[in-house]
Amino acid sequence: MEKFKLNKKTDTPLYIQLYENFKTLIEEDQLENEKLPSIRNLANSLGVNNVTVVSAYKLLEKEGYVYSIKGSGTYIRKLPVDTISYLEEGDMDLMVSGILPISNNSINFASMSPTPDLFPIEEFKRVLIEVLDRDAGLAFLYPEITGYDPLRGSISKFLKEHYNTVVNKEQILITSGGQQGLDIISKTLINPGDCIFVENPTYSGALGTFKSRGAKIIGIPINENGIDIIALKSYIKKYRPKFLYIMTNYQSPTTYSYDFRSKEELLLLSKEYGFYIIEDDFLTDLTFSENKKMPLKSIDRFDQVIFIKSFSKIFMPGVRIGFITLPNKLFKEIIKAKHTTDISSSGYLQRAFDLYLRQGYWKNHIEKIKAVYSKKYKLMTEGLDRLSEYGVSYIKPDGGLSIWLKLPKNIDSINIYNECAENGLAIVPGKVFFVDDSIYSNYIRLSFGQISNEEIIEGLRILENIISKPFRDKESNYLPFI
Amino acid sequence: MEKFKLNKKTDTPLYIQLYENFKTLIEEDQLENEKLPSIRNLANSLGVNNVTVVSAYKLLEKEGYVYSIKGSGTYIRKLPVDTISYLEEGDMDLMVSGILPISNNSINFASMSPTPDLFPIEEFKRVLIEVLDRDAGLAFLYPEITGYDPLRGSISKFLKEHYNTVVNKEQILITSGGQQGLDIISKTLINPGDCIFVENPTYSGALGTFKSRGAKIIGIPINENGIDIIALKSYIKKYRPKFLYIMTNYQSPTTYSYDFRSKEELLLLSKEYGFYIIEDDFLTDLTFSENKKMPLKSIDRFDQVIFIKSFSKIFMPGVRIGFITLPNKLFKEIIKAKHTTDISSSGYLQRAFDLYLRQGYWKNHIEKIKAVYSKKYKLMTEGLDRLSEYGVSYIKPDGGLSIWLKLPKNIDSINIYNECAENGLAIVPGKVFFVDDSIYSNYIRLSFGQISNEEIIEGLRILENIISKPFRDKESNYLPFI
Repeated sequence: MEKFKLNKKTDTPLYIQLYENFKTLIEEDQLENEKLPSIRNLANSLGVNNVTVVSAYKLLEKEGYVYSIKGSGTYIRKLPVDTISYLEEGDMDLMVSGILPISNNSINFASMSPTPDLFPIEEFKRVLIEVLDRDAGLAFLYPEITGYDPLRGSISKFLKEHYNTVVNKEQILITSGGQQGLDIISKTLINPGDCIFVENPTYSGALGTFKSRGAKIIGIPINENGIDIIALKSYIKKYRPKFLYIMTNYQSPTTYSYDFRSKEELLLLSKEYGFYIIEDDFLTDLTFSENKKMPLKSIDRFDQVIFIKSFSKIFMPGVRIGFITLPNKLFKEIIKAKHTTDISSSGYLQRAFDLYLRQGYWKNHIEKIKAVYSKKYKLMTEGLDRLSEYGVSYIKPDGGLSIWLKLPKNIDSINIYNECAENGLAIVPGKVFFVDDSIYSNYIRLSFGQISNEEIIEGLRILENIISKPFRDKESNYLPFI
Repeated sequence: MEKFKLNKKTDTPLYIQLYENFKTLIEEDQLENEKLPSIRNLANSLGVNNVTVVSAYKLLEKEGYVYSIKGSGTYIRKLPVDTISYLEEGDMDLMVSGILPISNNSINFASMSPTPDLFPIEEFKRVLIEVLDRDAGLAFLYPEITGYDPLRGSISKFLKEHYNTVVNKEQILITSGGQQGLDIISKTLINPGDCIFVENPTYSGALGTFKSRGAKIIGIPINENGIDIIALKSYIKKYRPKFLYIMTNYQSPTTYSYDFRSKEELLLLSKEYGFYIIEDDFLTDLTFSENKKMPLKSIDRFDQVIFIKSFSKIFMPGVRIGFITLPNKLFKEIIKAKHTTDISSSGYLQRAFDLYLRQGYWKNHIEKIKAVYSKKYKLMTEGLDRLSEYGVSYIKPDGGLSIWLKLPKNIDSINIYNECAENGLAIVPGKVFFVDDSIYSNYIRLSFGQISNEEIIEGLRILENIISKPFRDKESNYLPFI
């Protein structure tokens, strides 16, 4: 412990000095062991009172640098504080991008992104080459700011066919993926200090974008049938939000879908109180039951809903093409925001995607990925049902790419995340999706976008091993999760 | 004039009522004639005093709805007020996109964007197909947030080879075009109310992005050798800017390039006063003389310069790939901003552009477009030199895609813009590039990105016809531009 510099002559309490020392060492990744020295040993070697060390460790824990396991000791959080706050403003795909450490050998229950074997490469290659032959240089001019006009037409048709939603092509703006839709809408609607509502928990990538515009963000609880309308009403009266951001089908992370009544009530409220609803849709297409889901936009007779579509999870994320619908009142403002953002999205890829839709490839593609994912969903749910004896539960979404697993109340999802990581399983701790840090979260998200059927079985085995531990150890009075 | 509703019984002065009436009619495009009724006629038909009409017209002129030509009358601005303010926040390419009305039959001296015949389609098609064969689905995964790693390497090499600039690949972030670089930097550095400096005049698309973050924008005069260092110093002491936004080579719209001394002084100032320099580079490659120009970044030993590269004007705008360099101190923040903006730029196009650079196509391409544009430049300058007798002048940039033409002091560039438009010539009025509206601007920008050699000759003939008019009409005492 020659690394510590404590000065007994200054005004700074020793425990604060010790805390600062540890903080720096942890931040700079200079400690060899994940386990901190025992309280007695450290107190002895530094010549200080035990209480000094206990106080320092408590402060470290409060600030999120370490966690303690009763009867075992104090450990550095594998998920560094910096990464946690990053994640809250980021996206789970950061994990895949290596910002949240996922060992390459881990089984990836963290990502919703599809794997390349599900990409319709042959068909897309065909349209890419066809565009080159047909349009040559025209494909590489600045496209119109609003997007390649024929693609806007194809999208309008797509909305009608698949979502029973009528939107003129003039009201469609092509974006560089769904995330850009969020960014552009934020630029249009959020001034610093403006109040906006989100479902709580929600997509962390959206929170990052809203925060970057200085929004005051209020989380409204979401339950099995949609946002909590009663809570929403009381918050509306208090805060008068600019907009409400929601995901109506297979919400992330909860996987909940809105029923018709919730949608209708929401729409009427938005009309009455004059706020927009931003409906972010990325999974509506992936229904495994006969009950086809529709977006809120399909019943929007007031032009109050801005519909954002991302194709990243159901097509190919690297194409970076999505769209938003434009309310008449905001048309000009949104176009302006798109222009200051990146002028326009790649015309070449827009033309290719247009051809892809026109030549009718979409339906086959969706049927194919539905078949693959519903198999994975079945494996996942069958496995998880067997874990109910350990006090875990979840609502069956019957679609989408994730399960939102509720753990027994006394379990912190960050601890489970760490234990899973140690055992080669990557999951997402529910905590990162909540707006309010102080909300205790005993949920984890398990996604099956990236994993093989074999990995599902093996991953669930690892998970079972971890969550069953308190039960196995009951006789020895071992209480690991506190 | 049955369209006007004046109410003599209210408190609102009649001239304000008349102003409001006209304003609405102009905004709704309901007036058939561009010329407003003569003062006497309108006063008679409305039964009001001449002064009422004069006051209303003056207010309309002050607000930008009309302009008057002495001895001729008052005219509605062809460039609607809405469009002007749009343009100030937009980009000249809006013209091409049809937002600023350019007749399709016009000769386009307004755009710097290249035409498809200059695109290296064959070579790019080859690499696009090669990537599909080589990478298949991998090309359509989410790419790394920072960009496709091999492309970052190619860019690092590119910077060394072409701009004598050393930047490690780890310090390179691939963006969806240069405009996105501006947006991401704004998100990272600008909080509402922060002060930033720009050259005055400057690129209107940058102003739009900075304004959208709530920046307080101060324009610093730019002269032939670069930004006015003396003015800059005094402003720095007063305002302490977050950053200074500049274009060192062939600045837009002035076409001026910084000399070495200006660059060195600027760098030292940025170090001394701790502000970043955002160097936006879009034309450095297009030098028509033997004197190769280098960016400021090439001498940046303090890590104070963020270099933004756009390939839109020198390659193909529709590829939407550019990059920025990341100062160590801002690395994390900028990556985070990129993520909330659009997660990542298209991996497929990044891979193709990487191959394009690796296979050595770049040099030939640049030589080819240089040859084409230097010919156009020669035609343009030879033609303009002949117009010096009418009091116009300009600094020869010896590169780039525009001429910044100074008109005699008493000529308003908006009037010239309108006259040119009427005669089938699209130019850009200098006014739209200035930060401060009140600055009177007798400059126009003439670009030769989009026009054939024949159109240059014809366009200059039209321009000569317009600017020589005061001289031809001298004997009849006609003073058209006041």
